[in-house]
Amino acid sequence: MLNFDFHNPTKILFGKGRIADLAGEVPAGARVMLTYGGGSVKKYGVLDQVKAALSGYDLAEFGGIEPNPRYETLMKCVEQVRSDGIDFLLAVGGGSVVDGTKFIAAAAVFAGNPWEIMETRGAAVKVALPLGTVLTLPATGSEMNCGSVVTREETKAKLPFLNPAVFPRFSVLDPTTTYTLPPRQTANGVIDTFVHIVEQYLTYPAGGKVQDRLSEGLLLTLIEEGPKALAEPENYEVRANLMWCATLGLNGLLGAGVPQDWATHMVGHEITALHGLDHGQTLAIVLPAMLEVRRAEKHEKLLQYARRVWDIRDKDQEQSVFAAIARTREFFEKMGVKTSLGDYGIGEEAIEAIVAQLEAHGMDRLGENRDVTPYLVRQVLQLCL
Amino acid sequence: MLNFDFHNPTKILFGKGRIADLAGEVPAGARVMLTYGGGSVKKYGVLDQVKAALSGYDLAEFGGIEPNPRYETLMKCVEQVRSDGIDFLLAVGGGSVVDGTKFIAAAAVFAGNPWEIMETRGAAVKVALPLGTVLTLPATGSEMNCGSVVTREETKAKLPFLNPAVFPRFSVLDPTTTYTLPPRQTANGVIDTFVHIVEQYLTYPAGGKVQDRLSEGLLLTLIEEGPKALAEPENYEVRANLMWCATLGLNGLLGAGVPQDWATHMVGHEITALHGLDHGQTLAIVLPAMLEVRRAEKHEKLLQYARRVWDIRDKDQEQSVFAAIARTREFFEKMGVKTSLGDYGIGEEAIEAIVAQLEAHGMDRLGENRDVTPYLVRQVLQLCL
Repeated sequence: MLNFDFHNPTKILFGKGRIADLAGEVPAGARVMLTYGGGSVKKYGVLDQVKAALSGYDLAEFGGIEPNPRYETLMKCVEQVRSDGIDFLLAVGGGSVVDGTKFIAAAAVFAGNPWEIMETRGAAVKVALPLGTVLTLPATGSEMNCGSVVTREETKAKLPFLNPAVFPRFSVLDPTTTYTLPPRQTANGVIDTFVHIVEQYLTYPAGGKVQDRLSEGLLLTLIEEGPKALAEPENYEVRANLMWCATLGLNGLLGAGVPQDWATHMVGHEITALHGLDHGQTLAIVLPAMLEVRRAEKHEKLLQYARRVWDIRDKDQEQSVFAAIARTREFFEKMGVKTSLGDYGIGEEAIEAIVAQLEAHGMDRLGENRDVTPYLVRQVLQLCL
Repeated sequence: MLNFDFHNPTKILFGKGRIADLAGEVPAGARVMLTYGGGSVKKYGVLDQVKAALSGYDLAEFGGIEPNPRYETLMKCVEQVRSDGIDFLLAVGGGSVVDGTKFIAAAAVFAGNPWEIMETRGAAVKVALPLGTVLTLPATGSEMNCGSVVTREETKAKLPFLNPAVFPRFSVLDPTTTYTLPPRQTANGVIDTFVHIVEQYLTYPAGGKVQDRLSEGLLLTLIEEGPKALAEPENYEVRANLMWCATLGLNGLLGAGVPQDWATHMVGHEITALHGLDHGQTLAIVLPAMLEVRRAEKHEKLLQYARRVWDIRDKDQEQSVFAAIARTREFFEKMGVKTSLGDYGIGEEAIEAIVAQLEAHGMDRLGENRDVTPYLVRQVLQLCL
């Protein structure tokens, strides 16, 4: 096991009706900015529940944070936060709203040019406004971590940043808010969670037996519960387990003490930035190909994954590995998400631009062994066609 | 899944050599009291490592905190903390030292009679001195939770208290400090961890699929790694996994959103208080009997435990249940811990006093269904003979 620090101060309020408990968590007397995305939190009454819970607080609002939140949009909110003298941010929505709000929290009190936050991947952040979240789409884990991904429209750059200052103070997770999610978003969320876990699990053996067991347990839960959420969208138990799975999938626990990959995510980000695919769709395309191309370096963990997650006990190791990758792809398809670039109308001609963007963003050595070069990414993308 | 709050602010510094990082965690300029137990942290150099890491700090010391830390001892430290103007406590040792230090932290700034802390099970605590830990014995999980168990010698009362004010600010977990543990303590630690997990897992189905998978994963790790620690005490990987397992076994994660039992622990505490057995020994005695007596109410989870943890797929359900209980007992024996009262020279005549103490401590309705009455405890203890 590798040495590690683990520190996650976010408080989780989980369950039916927990939005009503918001007032106990937001500091008394705070001027609060509610941030949200499109109309769904309005349409389905979540925003009204939040406002009712915070009656008596001085509330401002900023809506219109888009999926893959844009720097340009977020900076408008930063201006409003500064001019309104806001001292607490409450994100109401999915991972994009939460990610965007983390950027706003850091940028609002940042001394220099806020784009430095992204350029330094968060290292330049010293302080941030406090924030909380009311999550309505389980997927990114952003509700209980200190990471964020922001897109700059003018340069088509979708980049991550990390800083402990942007850990949410609390997150309210009410599974009933996810009943109304369109199937596509439910599926994307399950796939995003699945791939988060895989990026922390499917590398090389490093003695993290505890971490392996935890990751395998969450993957099994997703495989069992994911399809049920499509069949029975108002099954509380199913929604609750998927929501908790998504949070634990990227709150630092699974990756503490073990190598991490993240090559699939970085390639996926470029596809989204250039072609507008959903994040979950890009992961469903890239992961199976990534595992196939890198099956030699990931051999031992792929065998363990085959055995413990998919119950594949083929005597031929290579066949086990291929079967596990095939089952992974089938699972994504079963969730209703297509797994090749061609399914989204993207052909071979797109490959060079994706690789060029990765290089432009300094991502020419990805993966747990830093050996996922542009050359290898090309191979992966060829397999994705 | 039940509604829950989850909030664990303790920072973990895990791995070889991490004691050297203490200075970054203890507030600069703090007057620090180092608390410890017997001689082992001195003998094996852990205390020296701590002092070297904290050179430049104003350090005081209080040694002699015994296993099952006594109120009487802890109150002596409280006096010293007050007279020395201590403002940070650093526990160096196992769960007893950590538990004792939590009591000291709360009692040192408590307005009334500190025994009220125990009588109210922690509810009377408003503030506590900040504390950190350097753990040398993985078992109790106290290094990452806000619970503590204290024994009052004069009344033979071993009682728990809980309060968020006593969460350690940080805990240093260096697995190499556990290389020198006597086999008995290694085994007790594995069994304590095992039973912590079982108390949160083996109740009735409540839709916590995520929690079940996490618990099962940790139980499997203990079963695989526990015996290896006895055979290869200086195997880093084994020690690291057992240490992280113990912490995660009782940091609030497994029990969040599911029913919890704890009857085995409460009965075990009375046996320790009256007869001086190690905590792990009492659990190894009580758990198998407790599961047998309550196998009807725990039927579904016992079957799941049989299947997923012990890979028992007997067609006869009752046989599966009994086989799982038998395997549990065998595992404890394999760890070198005896599993009946008779093995420790305790006979039937002891039963009434144990039951009377439980009643005296208001514990006449234990377990996840509050139906473990003195009548039932008598049955359990009869089976333990």
